[in-house]
Amino acid sequence: MTPLDFRLVEAPIVNPGPGEVLVRQRWLSIDPYLRERMNDAKSYMSPQPLHEVMAGGGAGEVLQSNHPDFAVGDPVVGIGGWQLFSTAKATAIVRVDTTQAPLAAFLGAAGMPGITAWYGMRQIIDPKPGETIVVSAASGSVGGVAGQLAKSIGCRVVGIAGGAVKCRYVVDELGFDACVDHKAGDLDAQLAAATPAGIDGCVENVGGRVLDAVMRRLNAFARVAISGLISGGYDGHAVAIADASMFSTARVKMEGFIVSDHRELWPAARAELAGLISSKRLKYRESIMRGLETAPSALIDVLEGRNFGKQLVELP
Amino acid sequence: MTPLDFRLVEAPIVNPGPGEVLVRQRWLSIDPYLRERMNDAKSYMSPQPLHEVMAGGGAGEVLQSNHPDFAVGDPVVGIGGWQLFSTAKATAIVRVDTTQAPLAAFLGAAGMPGITAWYGMRQIIDPKPGETIVVSAASGSVGGVAGQLAKSIGCRVVGIAGGAVKCRYVVDELGFDACVDHKAGDLDAQLAAATPAGIDGCVENVGGRVLDAVMRRLNAFARVAISGLISGGYDGHAVAIADASMFSTARVKMEGFIVSDHRELWPAARAELAGLISSKRLKYRESIMRGLETAPSALIDVLEGRNFGKQLVELP
Repeated sequence: MTPLDFRLVEAPIVNPGPGEVLVRQRWLSIDPYLRERMNDAKSYMSPQPLHEVMAGGGAGEVLQSNHPDFAVGDPVVGIGGWQLFSTAKATAIVRVDTTQAPLAAFLGAAGMPGITAWYGMRQIIDPKPGETIVVSAASGSVGGVAGQLAKSIGCRVVGIAGGAVKCRYVVDELGFDACVDHKAGDLDAQLAAATPAGIDGCVENVGGRVLDAVMRRLNAFARVAISGLISGGYDGHAVAIADASMFSTARVKMEGFIVSDHRELWPAARAELAGLISSKRLKYRESIMRGLETAPSALIDVLEGRNFGKQLVELP
Repeated sequence: MTPLDFRLVEAPIVNPGPGEVLVRQRWLSIDPYLRERMNDAKSYMSPQPLHEVMAGGGAGEVLQSNHPDFAVGDPVVGIGGWQLFSTAKATAIVRVDTTQAPLAAFLGAAGMPGITAWYGMRQIIDPKPGETIVVSAASGSVGGVAGQLAKSIGCRVVGIAGGAVKCRYVVDELGFDACVDHKAGDLDAQLAAATPAGIDGCVENVGGRVLDAVMRRLNAFARVAISGLISGGYDGHAVAIADASMFSTARVKMEGFIVSDHRELWPAARAELAGLISSKRLKYRESIMRGLETAPSALIDVLEGRNFGKQLVELP
């Protein structure tokens, strides 16, 4: 995928019909799953059609409202797509509380990635105090929230990230107990040193050799929440699990999930995460590009691991 | 492993102490997990020590009792080991109801394998009527019970077995809707034909290419219960999962379990299975060898897939 696979076009604003709202978008959420939607393959999502607005999450303010639940100026998030102005059914957007967290946070730590972390940790792993929890892509927008949630429960939390800079951030800023640098040589030895009591739970969104290394250290009754397998899956390559014997010997539960299946939990999760941001108990970083035309490059950065924290495109 | 790895020795009967019971064993249960215990490796079980009685399930009758819960002649099952006479704590054996099912059935369809099937189907897969359930090693003592339990719930049940004879048994005698012969060529095509609506649940104890073929046809929210990965795991080889992307795209839950972790459920499961045998709604087969000295060969048969149904050794 290259930026040349996209085209920037001008088109008239679509007037909102009855029950619809016109939103001036201020932030685009740039997420790995967008690449998967560009494959014409069986998936939980319908594929991105050619020659239509690229889909994707956005945040902005209401410019015009034909629905009693929304007033002009309301801060909202939704699937606005890669465009400055989005016309949407009122049922497809939600108003967010920007007194708790900045608008852009509702695309990140208090948005889809944060709620993904929340779901994996609370609904699948359900960690107990003192357990060891490993979080892959720990400096990312899912991993960072997942690890901080586990820390707040009283777990030993070990991140996995690529490079010393990201690892330092995970430990020094996010407060993880340790971080393993998967670019710094012997992953198994590093992970063993960081998890002397084995691993009880893992939020995994990388796959491949990272997941294999985690599997080898799982304790009995460990839980692995799979929120995406980016290390090959998004380009359609198979991501293998090298040794599945741990499933039976350690009674491992591995469960994949798509947070959009669980919309009924979003309001509570969003409110909790925004509250943690407000009280400075949940930290996060953002990588911000400016201007609609930067969105393709921003997505490529995410897929190639060049972003640091939640990748956003600001629409001034 | 060969029969020469074992030695047949004579030793005095151990007199039962206070709270203990002496059992004359009549049946030995020959199960794949016995091979795993012979590896000196980290496992959910302690390894089988050298120069001691080979462990393993057995059934027999009480010869002498120093515990009020057991009377001479009571039919019991326990981990009697490969020996004619077993001395055990009363808390380590259970009395079984041979008016419901024959004694040997409490080592098979109403014993550990049957309860394994029951646990995987009821506690992990929890199938809904109309769902498609696939059972690997379908002619075996776990698979046969698993499939019949799913049929009784109203599922479409498809077995996987090796060879036309086993497949015919699975369909004609056990009442599965279809059976795929994994020795008869294109596994994917056969499985697709037998599961036109995809697969919602699977009790899997083979692993390798059979599990991979099943994974490719999983529907959203499918559940895979892993009760052992015999196709390599018991000799210590890694059993890979070729493509883990289904975990995220189809939100698959895969859970390994060891039925001995769930002893509290055994009495209810055993009674239910024995009741189904009594009313002829649960069918099973046994492969029987005679004489203690045949136990090593019987185990090798099981590991190499030569048995047909539950492998037992009768101790006349």
